[in-house]
Amino acid sequence: MAKDFSTREENYSQWYNDIVIKAGLAENSAVRGCMIIKPYGYAIWEKMQAALDKMFKDTGHSNAYFPIFIPKSFFSKEASHVEGFAKECAIVTHYRLKNSPDGKGVIVDEDAKLEEELIIRPTSETIIWDSYRNWIQSYRDLPLLINQWANVVRWEMRTRLFLRTAEFLWQEGHTAHATKEEAIEETEKMLDVYTTFAENFMAMPVIKGTKSENERFAGAIETYCIEALMQDGKALQAGTSHFLGQNFAKAFDVKFATKDSTLEYVWATSWGVSTRLIGALVMAHSDDKGLVLPPKLAPIQVAIIPIYKNADQLKEISEKVLPIKKELESLGISVKYDDRDTFKPGWKFSEYEFKGVPVRIAIGPRDIEQGTVEVARRDTLEKAVYQQEGLAKQIEHLLEQIQDNLFKKALSFREQNTRKADTWEEFKDIIENKAGFVSAHWDGTTETEDAIKNETKATIRCIPLNNPKEEGKCIYTGKPSTQRALFARAY
Amino acid sequence: MAKDFSTREENYSQWYNDIVIKAGLAENSAVRGCMIIKPYGYAIWEKMQAALDKMFKDTGHSNAYFPIFIPKSFFSKEASHVEGFAKECAIVTHYRLKNSPDGKGVIVDEDAKLEEELIIRPTSETIIWDSYRNWIQSYRDLPLLINQWANVVRWEMRTRLFLRTAEFLWQEGHTAHATKEEAIEETEKMLDVYTTFAENFMAMPVIKGTKSENERFAGAIETYCIEALMQDGKALQAGTSHFLGQNFAKAFDVKFATKDSTLEYVWATSWGVSTRLIGALVMAHSDDKGLVLPPKLAPIQVAIIPIYKNADQLKEISEKVLPIKKELESLGISVKYDDRDTFKPGWKFSEYEFKGVPVRIAIGPRDIEQGTVEVARRDTLEKAVYQQEGLAKQIEHLLEQIQDNLFKKALSFREQNTRKADTWEEFKDIIENKAGFVSAHWDGTTETEDAIKNETKATIRCIPLNNPKEEGKCIYTGKPSTQRALFARAY
Repeated sequence: MAKDFSTREENYSQWYNDIVIKAGLAENSAVRGCMIIKPYGYAIWEKMQAALDKMFKDTGHSNAYFPIFIPKSFFSKEASHVEGFAKECAIVTHYRLKNSPDGKGVIVDEDAKLEEELIIRPTSETIIWDSYRNWIQSYRDLPLLINQWANVVRWEMRTRLFLRTAEFLWQEGHTAHATKEEAIEETEKMLDVYTTFAENFMAMPVIKGTKSENERFAGAIETYCIEALMQDGKALQAGTSHFLGQNFAKAFDVKFATKDSTLEYVWATSWGVSTRLIGALVMAHSDDKGLVLPPKLAPIQVAIIPIYKNADQLKEISEKVLPIKKELESLGISVKYDDRDTFKPGWKFSEYEFKGVPVRIAIGPRDIEQGTVEVARRDTLEKAVYQQEGLAKQIEHLLEQIQDNLFKKALSFREQNTRKADTWEEFKDIIENKAGFVSAHWDGTTETEDAIKNETKATIRCIPLNNPKEEGKCIYTGKPSTQRALFARAY
Repeated sequence: MAKDFSTREENYSQWYNDIVIKAGLAENSAVRGCMIIKPYGYAIWEKMQAALDKMFKDTGHSNAYFPIFIPKSFFSKEASHVEGFAKECAIVTHYRLKNSPDGKGVIVDEDAKLEEELIIRPTSETIIWDSYRNWIQSYRDLPLLINQWANVVRWEMRTRLFLRTAEFLWQEGHTAHATKEEAIEETEKMLDVYTTFAENFMAMPVIKGTKSENERFAGAIETYCIEALMQDGKALQAGTSHFLGQNFAKAFDVKFATKDSTLEYVWATSWGVSTRLIGALVMAHSDDKGLVLPPKLAPIQVAIIPIYKNADQLKEISEKVLPIKKELESLGISVKYDDRDTFKPGWKFSEYEFKGVPVRIAIGPRDIEQGTVEVARRDTLEKAVYQQEGLAKQIEHLLEQIQDNLFKKALSFREQNTRKADTWEEFKDIIENKAGFVSAHWDGTTETEDAIKNETKATIRCIPLNNPKEEGKCIYTGKPSTQRALFARAY
């Protein structure tokens, strides 16, 4: 299975696609732009969900579920939302099929036309704020901290597995607050949750920042984001957290009685990450031998492969392996003991290597004699002989090392690929010939941002939160600037 | 909050609706027939999902995700599926909105019409079997044991929160097997999983059986089901498991190479339960004081309420409560210590009573003096004084007792409301005046089944799996019959 796929050098885009498909993460479906998330890919999503969901709950949020359908008229209620949000979406116009008169299959029953068309949610601010009007009366009902795990649809024209699909899975947090300060605090808190998740679980360093006006979410006052760098030097937006001000409260008339019995509009945030993160995970760490997964998100953390010539040998090996497996599992480590006799050890080795299993343990007759096993780590491809005695604890430690190493490697890659540009020539040269992040002065206008994008395809990824104030001149217009923005070509 | 709602006697249907809405489980949305599952209701669903998902994985299944859209033509591929399946479904015909020429909002862009309409999945057999064609080549690829957690849409005309909604959440298992025997075994195994879940977690006794041809899933050879009895004497189908034979494999051309290198069609099953179970849970146990939840599915298992007059008293109580809370949590019990000063103890008592929290603990100054607490159980409404010493263990035991008691109570109710009828008069009398299950001989024809339904609104819920063979005469036609079927009016 692992043979015959592109290297990053040959064709980065094909390499990505080959890994996703051949490692069994996802595939295209019969429906244009919609993917099928296969069991191995979905198992990664489940691990992501579990980690994020715990963090959401630890910060006081509850899950709920709102309808997939949004009445068309709802989109018009918040002016900048409808203006700025892409209008490519799936529209339900009818509610019944009927048998075709020619007896061949079914056709749409034209008598079953909806009075008002329904839009498959591309995001749920409108339907949720329409509900919040009834949920929020007084300051006692605030803050309202809700999250939803759901599928959403945006009718994208050019799709790529995980990175951009018509339907995708995500979570969307929608919170309501009594004050502006509290809402901004929530927006930043959830950005921190995403940062912790990206760095500690995905082993993917990210830069926290705010978006320029151009890239802001439709309806937001401020959009915060985390940006990661992929191995081809392109940036990927890994999560966003929006401070929505009172825009949606005003659009849907959501007011609350304050302690002083005045009526005020509620302050809002929304924030989300999606199955796109699986694409980021693949691109952040994988190599020309296939997928590389950080231990904390790997569905299988340790694969154990017996090397044997006959049933007696297998039996002897299994007797050693099963207690080891049990001990590993008691430490919370997921283990696959692959004793299938339908595949040879060599095939299994490349299978687990290709699938990015962090640690592979091989055990044969000589290991039985010597009380050892062979341990291979996926990140560095190094092999070493370990004693069976005390193995579980050593493997636990090794998994931590691998998690740590992947993060450091990605961080070092990003540091090597983040450059300052002080002139337009320098900027163009980096974008064209080196890629990566470029930190450069910008005059703060949308016109300049658009011009830079048109000439180089680079966009402002963010204005980093920890940006030092620094006098300078815009690399494009030469106008004065007070801080640098972070540019890159992006997914 | 708990005041002012119907009793079961007054209006069972209104009682149900009042509990669902006033306990904050769900509400109707702006979209006809679609509900909003509110945080407290969704927390029950999360508990259900966790328990079921573990059982699915323990029986070897993996989760995956397939597109929400199904090309219209797919429905025509399996003849009995399209014939039998309701044609009320949401149909996507367009993929773009545009600004309205009058400047007021958005309209559907008629230029963006899909070549083939897409149906929002009412169930996913077709799109999944279309994928399985590529996933299954050889016996080595079997069995394929996949489950999906997803939203589905059936354009129901008369909807009721949880019980029947246009959109609902569910899981659908779709498995593929090399032999008929193995597929039947899987169908029965998953029915057993559902039975275990219903009885051990929901505390709701169910009868396992098979459906008559009339009630069989469109495309199935045999539909197994579990049927529960609600407090108004109506039955509720709580889960189904279908043996699909080779119907879908033939429709979507899914063959596998056997060990003997012959090509054969694959055998299939599918099985599902939905958010409807939350409706069943409400109706199975609740009373005229509100929701009653079995401890294993209660989002809050124990509510602790301090009774105090001033801050000093509260402080003293909290010092006692916090270690108790911690000890309960260390036993895996979810505890809410409600020390809010915005609500009085009496209000909190009825709040947790109405919300079905299994155990309520009250602790006041006299309890502090005497080392006691007051414990109230929701199922029997009994109160007792417990010693603080060793409280956690006692509460753990009490929760088990409550779980057990709810099941026994529901079982006893069902036993009292399951009757044999040997004549048509007897049958009609029971259905009309007593309700509940009626066990009666039936001649096995669809015509008779339809006639009985037309005259009494009772349907065959199932032919119980453990049915004794017994000579008899059909209560309606007098024709000979070899076994009884279980009839009831149903949700």
